[in-house]
Order: sequence, then structure tokens, then C-alpha cells
Amino acid sequence: MNDQTIIDDLIEALRCLPGIGPKSAQRMVMHLLERDRKGAVNLAVKLQGAMDLIKHCAKCRNFTEEVLCQICKSTSRDTSQLCIVENPGDVFAIEQTGHYRGLYFVLMGALSPIDGIGPEEIGLDALISRCDAEVKEVILAVSSSVEGEATAHYISEMLRDLDVSLSRIAQGIPLGGELESVDGGTLSHAINGRKTI
Amino acid sequence: MNDQTIIDDLIEALRCLPGIGPKSAQRMVMHLLERDRKGAVNLAVKLQGAMDLIKHCAKCRNFTEEVLCQICKSTSRDTSQLCIVENPGDVFAIEQTGHYRGLYFVLMGALSPIDGIGPEEIGLDALISRCDAEVKEVILAVSSSVEGEATAHYISEMLRDLDVSLSRIAQGIPLGGELESVDGGTLSHAINGRKTI
Repeated sequence: MNDQTIIDDLIEALRCLPGIGPKSAQRMVMHLLERDRKGAVNLAVKLQGAMDLIKHCAKCRNFTEEVLCQICKSTSRDTSQLCIVENPGDVFAIEQTGHYRGLYFVLMGALSPIDGIGPEEIGLDALISRCDAEVKEVILAVSSSVEGEATAHYISEMLRDLDVSLSRIAQGIPLGGELESVDGGTLSHAINGRKTI
Repeated sequence: MNDQTIIDDLIEALRCLPGIGPKSAQRMVMHLLERDRKGAVNLAVKLQGAMDLIKHCAKCRNFTEEVLCQICKSTSRDTSQLCIVENPGDVFAIEQTGHYRGLYFVLMGALSPIDGIGPEEIGLDALISRCDAEVKEVILAVSSSVEGEATAHYISEMLRDLDVSLSRIAQGIPLGGELESVDGGTLSHAINGRKTI
């Protein structure tokens, strides 16, 4: 294998990263080879390690290297609240706010029949068995896209007969958002969801 | 080590890539774990391989896994021309045009005393011994930045007493460039460098 092939292979391999095209990949390879070989080797080791070790939590489907994730294992969480999110990144985001102490259920996607993603693919059968006697409130924190709306609707229908209260996170103008730059749909939601002060 | 640490470590490791901040790195990790584990493992292998194998060519300082790079080893190149570039990426770019058949010398940077990059760091002593009897023309293809200009000036002074003709790639308006959107400095260069047609 000649040197051009090795470099080209690496450029091609970098394109598995989202948002990285051929030009960015080439720039990255040059940067790593010229200035940060140690960082590159470290990245290779960390990538391999994470891919080998990280699996899904048996209870909430989030990423973990053990059978249960840190949040499901924790004894200090409020087990009566269950927050349903689409992706592990959403758990990250909610955890960073520090305002939620309940548990999670990660769908790993949203309903999208056109892409072949049905209720089974997003683990809705597991969700029903997850909603046991301990769970009092289910919070839908799915995104506000078409797929997210469909998923929210499907789940609310599915859990209707269970003895849990169901809520959905608020939709409205973002913090620091100026009214004139907010789209009409968001503004409608914000007006409909107004709160007495 | 808990799962959060493994993921956080990977996010941190990805930041060795140029232009990748914490948010992009997190998005990349989630994407790889959720949708492209095979790609991630492949990337780890290719990264490790390239970092282990790729060294500098003894003749032109470009990246290679052998003693001499493919271009220096080739018997079909014009050994009378030597093109001086700042980075291996520049060799890539010039090779892609297919218009140059000579050899290269890669500085791996440009003179920048403020960053501690002097003539030795960019291999100018190796460049003098590289300009042997075979080399008839040295083409300066350094960038048009302050550092590039300084480097070009230094090299032209250095090679003045050698029996080689020295040229610099043309500066002017880029292909498809509209005059009104081209900056004044480029336009001055374009006018000064006008050619009789």
C-alpha cells in the first residue's frame, strides 16, 4: 500500500463523521499529521474503546457500558417520573440543566414509517413494560418535528389506559428570543400555552 | 470507569480535530454510537495506521511511509523543476490540477519568528543541499500571507547565488472572480502582473 492510499483511506474514513466533507476531511488529516499525532492516536484509542464498550441500558435504552446506566442505577433519582426522549443527546442536554431528577426512556429515534421506523424500532413495547407501578408521571420530551409529533401522539394513545399522568414539555419562545425573529408556529404555541402570572 | 467518562473522553478526544467544538464533538459521538459504529471502528484503525506509518520523505519532506515519497521516487517527473510549498496539502492541491510534472519541496510551515519558526524549522538548510545540479528552476508556490511573503523573500535571497532560475506563481484575480468583489491588493497585483495577449 503506498502512502497516498493510506492518507486517502484516512480522509475517506473521517467522512463517517456527520457534516464532514472531503475538503474538511483532508484539512483534518493534514492537521493531525503535521501538528497533533498524539491527539490522533488518543482519538483512535478512545474511539475503539467507546465502540467496544458502550451498549444500551436494559432499562432506559440509553448508552452505557454496564447492564444498567448510571442514572437507572442511581438511588437518588425520583423513580415516579419518567422522561421520554428521542436520543441519548437529549438526556445529556436535560441532565446539563440540572432541573430534572427523574428517570429516562430513550426511544433512539422517532416514528417514521417512511424510513421503516415503527413502534417496535423505537422500543415502545419495552416502554409499556417500563411504565410499572412506580411510575406516576410520564413526560414527553420529544422534538417538535413531524416525526416527534407523531411519536408523542402515538405514545399518549398507547399510555391512555395506564394509571399515569402524561405531560409534554412546553413549547414557546426560547430564552432571549425576540418576538419578531420567532416563527409563526412557535408564536402560536407560545400564545396558546400562555400562563397566568 | 463509568460510561459517562468513556463518552466524555471520546468527546474530548474528538476536539483534536480542527474546527470541532464541544457541541459538534458531542453530536459526532452520538451519531457514531447510534448509527455508524462500523465507520467509527474503521476510523480508529485508519487513524492509528496513518499515525504509525506516515513519516517525512527524506528528499522533499512531504508525508510518506517509505524513505522517499511516490513523487520523488517516480521516474516520470521533470527533475529540473522544484516547486516549494508550505504544506503537504498544497502538494495535494497542485497535483490535482495535473499541470505540474516537476518535484516538490515542502517547508512544513512558513517563516514566523514570533512563533519561533525560523529558517531551520522550515528546513531551509535541507533546501540548499536539495538544489543540486539537476535543478534548473525553483518555483515559489508559498501563500500570499505575511509569513508567506517573508518566506518567499528569504528563499529568493538565499538562492540568489545558485545557478537556478527563480519564479513565483502568479497573483491575480481568481477564476470566475468578479472585479468588484476582488480586494484592492489582489487587483493591484493583477494589474501589475498583466500579460500581453
